[in-house]
Amino acid sequence: MKKKQNVTLKELANALNLSVSTVSRALNDHPDISETTRNKVKQLAEKHNYVPNLFASGFRSHRTHILGVVVPNISHYFTTTVLKGILEEGENLGYRVIISESKNDEKKQSEMLQTMMQFGVDGVLLALSRKTKSVDDILKVINRIPLVMFDKVSSKIPCTQVVINEEEAAYNAVEHLINTGKRRIAIIKETEGSFNSEKRYQGYLRALSEHGLPIDEKIILSTEDISLTKGRMMANILLSLKKRPDAIFAITDSAAIGVIKALNKFKVKVPEEIAVVGFSNSASSTIINPSLTTVDQPGNKIGRTAVKYLIDEIENPKEDATTKTIEIKTNLIVRDSSFKV
Amino acid sequence: MKKKQNVTLKELANALNLSVSTVSRALNDHPDISETTRNKVKQLAEKHNYVPNLFASGFRSHRTHILGVVVPNISHYFTTTVLKGILEEGENLGYRVIISESKNDEKKQSEMLQTMMQFGVDGVLLALSRKTKSVDDILKVINRIPLVMFDKVSSKIPCTQVVINEEEAAYNAVEHLINTGKRRIAIIKETEGSFNSEKRYQGYLRALSEHGLPIDEKIILSTEDISLTKGRMMANILLSLKKRPDAIFAITDSAAIGVIKALNKFKVKVPEEIAVVGFSNSASSTIINPSLTTVDQPGNKIGRTAVKYLIDEIENPKEDATTKTIEIKTNLIVRDSSFKV
Repeated sequence: MKKKQNVTLKELANALNLSVSTVSRALNDHPDISETTRNKVKQLAEKHNYVPNLFASGFRSHRTHILGVVVPNISHYFTTTVLKGILEEGENLGYRVIISESKNDEKKQSEMLQTMMQFGVDGVLLALSRKTKSVDDILKVINRIPLVMFDKVSSKIPCTQVVINEEEAAYNAVEHLINTGKRRIAIIKETEGSFNSEKRYQGYLRALSEHGLPIDEKIILSTEDISLTKGRMMANILLSLKKRPDAIFAITDSAAIGVIKALNKFKVKVPEEIAVVGFSNSASSTIINPSLTTVDQPGNKIGRTAVKYLIDEIENPKEDATTKTIEIKTNLIVRDSSFKV
Repeated sequence: MKKKQNVTLKELANALNLSVSTVSRALNDHPDISETTRNKVKQLAEKHNYVPNLFASGFRSHRTHILGVVVPNISHYFTTTVLKGILEEGENLGYRVIISESKNDEKKQSEMLQTMMQFGVDGVLLALSRKTKSVDDILKVINRIPLVMFDKVSSKIPCTQVVINEEEAAYNAVEHLINTGKRRIAIIKETEGSFNSEKRYQGYLRALSEHGLPIDEKIILSTEDISLTKGRMMANILLSLKKRPDAIFAITDSAAIGVIKALNKFKVKVPEEIAVVGFSNSASSTIINPSLTTVDQPGNKIGRTAVKYLIDEIENPKEDATTKTIEIKTNLIVRDSSFKV
C-alpha cells in the first residue's frame, strides 16, 4: 500500500492560517487543540484527501520511545504470556510499554487505539477484538504510525502479523491421538469461528481426512465463550451419545480441563476410554489429574517477535506498508491425558 | 499535608519570559518542550520551591479522562482480577484506563509513573513494587495529581489506600484449621516480609497465641518468590521433620498447590493426615485434587473501590491530601483440602 499524498501538512496550515504544529496536533486529536479547530482541520484534510506522512520533515521529529498495546482481554492466560514477552523485549530495546484492553468490543478497541495515538506512542501492537467488523479505525492508525498485529489478526489489515501455526498445531494434536490408536475423535470449538478456532478446526479436519477417518457432525461441538464450564457441558453431551468418542480435542485448555473434570466425575478412564488434548499449555494443565496433553503456544516468543518487528518499523521507516505473516512454531506436550507409559 | 506554594506558575513564566502553558508543560516533561527550556524552568522552579497547584486557574483546565495504573506484575492472577475491576468501574464512570508494569523494580516504577504523568492522566492507581525503598517519586506524583494505592501499599505515602484485611483473613484461615482439630500448624511465607506476607504472618501468630498453641520456629518456613515449586520444596522439608505438622497454611494458592502435589506424591492423606489452606482463591484452587480451602480475595471489588475513590478525588479536589485506609473483607472458602464431609 503506497501512501498517497495529495496535500501537505504545510499547505493545510497555510490555508487555515494555523501553525503546522497545531494542524498536526489537531489531526492527532491532541487535547490542547479545541474541538472547533480540530473539526475545521479534519474537514479540510479529508476534502483534500490528506494522508499524514510520518517521515516528512519536522512532523514527529521526536520519538517518545513508548509502545502501546491493545488486547481483547488482559486476564486471559495466554495473553499475559505474550504481554510478558512484549514488556521484556520492549525494555531490552529501550522502549516503555503501556497496555489497554478492548474487552472484545470494537468500539472500545477504536477508543483505545485513539487514546494510544493521543499519547503519541511510537507504534502499536494489536490483538484484534473478536467482534471487529470494520477495520477502518485500524487502517487510520497504520496511516500514521507502525502497527504490528499478533495472535488475533486479519488479512484485511496490511501490516506485519505474528501468529502461531494454528492449523498445523491442531493437525499435530489430532494426529497424535490417531497414532495412539484413537479412531473416533471429537472436537470442541468456538461457535462464531474466530480466526484461531477456525484454523484449529481446519487442522482437525485435515488430520482426519489424511488418515482416512470419517467426519461425523455429531462429535463436532461448538460453543460460544469457550470455558471450563462449557467444556464440562460438552463432555456431558458426548458421554450421552450412543456412539461415544474415544478421544476429545478441545481447542482451549480450560475447555479440556472441564472435559477431564466431567470424565473423572463419571469415572470414565482417561486416556484408556477417552483421551483428551487441549491447546495452550496453561498453568492449570499440570494441576489437573491426569495431567493434560496440550499444544504449547510460545506466548513469550510471540510477544518478543512482535516487538522486534514493530521497533524495526519505527526505527527504519519504509515508504511501503509491510504485509507479512510471521509464523511461530508450537510443540505438542504429551502428558497423561492422552498417553500413559 | 497542606500544599506549600511559594511561587506561582505565572511568576515563573514572567521571570523566564515564557508562556504559562510552556512552563507548565516543561514541568510536566511534555515532549514538545526542548530539554534546554525544561531544565531552565525546572531549575528556577526548584530554586523557588515551586509546587504545582492543580487547582490554580488555567492549569490542567482540560481533563483527559484517562487513568494510569502501575502494578508490579500484570500476569499475577490476583492482579488481573483487580485490573478487571479497575477497567470495568473506570468504564462505568467514563474513564479510559492504561496499564503498565513495574516488574517489582523501583526504577521501572518511577519511569512508568513519569510516563503516566507525561501522558497527562487524570489520576494514578498504584500497587507498590516489592523493592521500593524510596517513596520520593511517588510523593512527586501526589503533588500533581490524585493517586490511590491498592493491595501493596505503604504507610509512608499520604493517600487513599485500598487493601484487604490481610491479618484477619490469615487469622480466620488458621482458626478454621484449629477448629477442625489441628494443633501443629505450619506456615509457608515470604522471606523479605512484604506488606501482605508480614500481615498474614501476624494473623497466623495471633490465632495460635489466642488458642494457646505453641509457636515452633521449625514449622515457620520462609521462601523468596513464593511459587508452586517452592511450595513443593517446603512441603518436602516439613515431611522430613521428626514431628510433622498436621496442617500447612501457605500464604499463596500457588504454594499451597505445590504443597498438595508433594503430599499427593508421598501418599499423605489430605486433609486427614495434613490439611492445607491457601490464600487468594485462584482458578487452579478448584482444579487441584483435593480442591483447596483458601481465602477469597475480592480483587474485582478492590479494583472498583480504588477507582471510585480516585475519580472522586479527581472530580472533587480537596486542598488537603487524603490519608485513609479502606479495608475490603475477605471470605474463607472451605473445600476438601481442610475439611471432608
